Amino acid sequence: MSDLRTSNLKKPVDVAEYLFARLHQIGIRSIHGLPGDYNLISLDYLPKAGLKWVGNCNELNAAYAADGYARVKGIGAIMTTFGVGELSAINGLAGAYSEMVPIVHIVGCPSTISQRNGMLLHHTLGNGDFNVFANMSANISCAVAKLNDPVEIANQIDHALRECYLRSKPVYIMLPTDMVARKVEGARLDEQIDLREPPNDEGKENYVVDVVLKYLHAAKNPVVLVDACAIRHRVLDEVHDFIEKTQLPVFVTPMGKGAINESHPSFGGVYSGNASQPDVKKMVEESDLVLSVGALKSDFNTAGFSYRMSQLNTIDLHSTHCVVRYSEYPGVKMRGVLRKVTDKVDVKQLKVSPPPKAPAIDFKGIDGKSPILQSWFWPHVNTFLKENDIVVTETGTANFGIWDTRFPPGVTALNQTLWGSIGWAVGACQGAALGAKDAEQDRRTILFEGDGSLQLTAQEISTMIRHKLNIILFVICNDGYTIERFIHGMEAEYNDIVEWKYKDLPTVFGGTDDTARKYVVKTKDELEALLTDKDFNERKGMRFVELYMPKEDAPRSLQLTAEASAKNNAKAE
Amino acid sequence: MSDLRTSNLKKPVDVAEYLFARLHQIGIRSIHGLPGDYNLISLDYLPKAGLKWVGNCNELNAAYAADGYARVKGIGAIMTTFGVGELSAINGLAGAYSEMVPIVHIVGCPSTISQRNGMLLHHTLGNGDFNVFANMSANISCAVAKLNDPVEIANQIDHALRECYLRSKPVYIMLPTDMVARKVEGARLDEQIDLREPPNDEGKENYVVDVVLKYLHAAKNPVVLVDACAIRHRVLDEVHDFIEKTQLPVFVTPMGKGAINESHPSFGGVYSGNASQPDVKKMVEESDLVLSVGALKSDFNTAGFSYRMSQLNTIDLHSTHCVVRYSEYPGVKMRGVLRKVTDKVDVKQLKVSPPPKAPAIDFKGIDGKSPILQSWFWPHVNTFLKENDIVVTETGTANFGIWDTRFPPGVTALNQTLWGSIGWAVGACQGAALGAKDAEQDRRTILFEGDGSLQLTAQEISTMIRHKLNIILFVICNDGYTIERFIHGMEAEYNDIVEWKYKDLPTVFGGTDDTARKYVVKTKDELEALLTDKDFNERKGMRFVELYMPKEDAPRSLQLTAEASAKNNAKAE
Repeated sequence: MSDLRTSNLKKPVDVAEYLFARLHQIGIRSIHGLPGDYNLISLDYLPKAGLKWVGNCNELNAAYAADGYARVKGIGAIMTTFGVGELSAINGLAGAYSEMVPIVHIVGCPSTISQRNGMLLHHTLGNGDFNVFANMSANISCAVAKLNDPVEIANQIDHALRECYLRSKPVYIMLPTDMVARKVEGARLDEQIDLREPPNDEGKENYVVDVVLKYLHAAKNPVVLVDACAIRHRVLDEVHDFIEKTQLPVFVTPMGKGAINESHPSFGGVYSGNASQPDVKKMVEESDLVLSVGALKSDFNTAGFSYRMSQLNTIDLHSTHCVVRYSEYPGVKMRGVLRKVTDKVDVKQLKVSPPPKAPAIDFKGIDGKSPILQSWFWPHVNTFLKENDIVVTETGTANFGIWDTRFPPGVTALNQTLWGSIGWAVGACQGAALGAKDAEQDRRTILFEGDGSLQLTAQEISTMIRHKLNIILFVICNDGYTIERFIHGMEAEYNDIVEWKYKDLPTVFGGTDDTARKYVVKTKDELEALLTDKDFNERKGMRFVELYMPKEDAPRSLQLTAEASAKNNAKAE
Repeated sequence: MSDLRTSNLKKPVDVAEYLFARLHQIGIRSIHGLPGDYNLISLDYLPKAGLKWVGNCNELNAAYAADGYARVKGIGAIMTTFGVGELSAINGLAGAYSEMVPIVHIVGCPSTISQRNGMLLHHTLGNGDFNVFANMSANISCAVAKLNDPVEIANQIDHALRECYLRSKPVYIMLPTDMVARKVEGARLDEQIDLREPPNDEGKENYVVDVVLKYLHAAKNPVVLVDACAIRHRVLDEVHDFIEKTQLPVFVTPMGKGAINESHPSFGGVYSGNASQPDVKKMVEESDLVLSVGALKSDFNTAGFSYRMSQLNTIDLHSTHCVVRYSEYPGVKMRGVLRKVTDKVDVKQLKVSPPPKAPAIDFKGIDGKSPILQSWFWPHVNTFLKENDIVVTETGTANFGIWDTRFPPGVTALNQTLWGSIGWAVGACQGAALGAKDAEQDRRTILFEGDGSLQLTAQEISTMIRHKLNIILFVICNDGYTIERFIHGMEAEYNDIVEWKYKDLPTVFGGTDDTARKYVVKTKDELEALLTDKDFNERKGMRFVELYMPKEDAPRSLQLTAEASAKNNAKAE
């Protein structure tokens, strides 16, 4: 082996050792994925680096899980094998790209020698092209690193990981089998990768801050609206400090759920255009200054583009730029602006209106034998959630229903409203619960899953049980793809699914009555009894609940959004 | 709607109607896939076209199933939704590209208006790019058709379907929601798409035929070797006629299994370099003329590139060219050459040697209580198979073990030796069985599946039951990823899997004792009793067998190939 160029290393370490040490430094403790012959040798290095191997059931689920892990632990990782493994995972990584979740995707690939010789290997297209899969992933990665030359590798790894974290998007790292044990400079590991966001240009930032303050101080009824990018680009501390100091009424979008302490007196609820509660809609849309933080105005996040606000009344703070009314400030990032606005705001000049009150919902009128309806189920969940719970909702009824649930402090909410890949939530739940465990936090992870969606990724329940994760899983049994029914085909056969014996899944997948207890609820009384049951709330491991709801029932917000979506699909010139 | 340009149509039909009518004409009767809001409206057109909707559990499984369907029925189709659905399926389609299986992939996508306006829709990357997924799929498709303009659409569809079939690769068709009901010329449907392969240039073809005949007539011990491309490019009739007339000894590669009637007196066995039976290896490698039909010399098809034949003794017939010794004939396709060589060969001039005999295996010496060993299980399967069975083997022990099984006439064998994506065989089995059903053939589909592999795609058992398919499913329970163990990490934790209660899967997925009967076999006696049981052999619906085999046992051919693969992975400069 001609390591002449690397023979003057101060502290030689193997490439795999270097890579995994870096992953550990940036906060990763578990790697999701499946073994394959092109990644087997590198897997031997995991224990030494203090990393656990998750061992998922398939790669798509593993990618979803790495996504959930990243949303809780800050960053995630998945390791797959060339061609077959990586392409199975690619939808999960595209989702992370779309939703801005940092995941390191490491692909074990054929040796550089096999690649150069264009060998006809298994897991190839048979055409000698070893770059085709990397090219595909380049579309959904913010950086691609092909580790082909030991002299470059340490730099490539550090660069890719920094991009991953700072841009909050997946990166793709291609690790050939013959590079795993090549030597790179281990002395670099003494210094951590700098993950700090570069500060704004001071002059520009001060200018924007002054403009923002001018409008804030002058506004008659300013409100704050917090959206997904505030979570993904990690400005929640800045937002909380701003709210704490100003006491301005604050709203979240559906994708912003969990960004704000919902028991704070300034919290006003979920704003999503036409699908908002009427008093929320009124207050936001009649405000003469909406300070919008990290907006992501996608169709399902805005109830079909139904915002009714003037840009003249809006200040938009983003991770890469700010917009005040129609003035744009490229390169001025929200973090610095928010921090300085908070420092400099004169609270005496602010007009602070009280936020709308949470709608009072009286469950007492409902018959105890009544089936469980979407309209009162979700507000009812309030009473069951605890501080610091992690709440994962699947695309479909759960994602819309959860708008009506008020969270206790510290709740982290996971949803995939923009990408909307059904089945995601099962994998994400596994990853989120493992992320909390790896962070040594004693948190419950609660998943609200649809029966149709569960069928896509059901086997990952097995991984939840294998790792003894603290999960409460509600399967909403309502006979199929309800969200699709409301868009098109209420009675169509293609929206039906096979009726599984859902609650037997944990047993088939290796659970016992101790490690994965099972429950069935069909009426209000049964639901209340379960949600207030001490053992159900406090026991560890999995609790698996079959939750029956009527087939043609859906949250009001879903119905409105589905209607808008059907209209948009049908639109013709 | 400005259909001015299409107002002079003789027989206007909707785009979806046209597309589905064409699919029906080329032999498709069932469409695999999942509903999604961008494809819902087109799904309404299926019944009118005489097409069934399969309704798979997830898109990857659906793609695998379309692959299996195509291998039995000639061509397959899958319909997914934009972004999330199509990317979930992409590994299955890449496999079809690699293995040359014709699949029509139809993606329901946002309207052309939404695309032009770059709307921030769900299932997008949020960057306004609506071509990114088509670009990714272009790498694994032989044609891409974006149906954006009614004037072009009928042409685009006909071209894509023709390419799909003739090149035996997937095509990608993007169907925007606002194009589904636009009008195209239905009169075109009166004429079927011409799927005939264009003939060779006659002069060139005659020249090659003469050269081939010269060497054939002169050879002392010629043999025929049939590989994957002979199956995929549909020259089996030509090969059979050639063998019938010449009686030359004929061998198949692992990927060529099923191409030849294995009870024919000329059949000599499976050739795969070093992993062949000794007398097979001797006869092929000592032959002074190997007539190789449709060779695909991938690592796992050649036991790690261990062929030992001289190109000087080889004639290679391919779907796009021929090679005689070192003379290449681009553009001369094998079909015409084979047909003419068969017509013109002078059998009196041929030296026909007898093929090697199938190794005699005596099962009587094995203790009835003995665990089931790979070495005698596979030859034993001979006795159980029936004429016209479809045999699907998963990548891993089954794919190698099946080399030692001699098939009765008419058996179709499915394996994915080049692409090698574990989990494929479960989906492919569903598709294959449905393909046989759609062809109104009374055939059993028999799947040999690994326990590790099953975990990736297990839910598709539900689809097999839903469609009442005639399937015998053996799960080889041997505690994990055995093929990986033999490559690297015999005792490594990453090659372990969670032990599922496999035989409870069909029940959870909606099967009953009548529709999905379950069996467990652990010893030779139990195996024999099962394989000779009349009801087991003849009943309809699913039969699900837990087949226990020792963890560290593998077919000899797998062991040799795995060794070669490990060496290749470790190779350094």
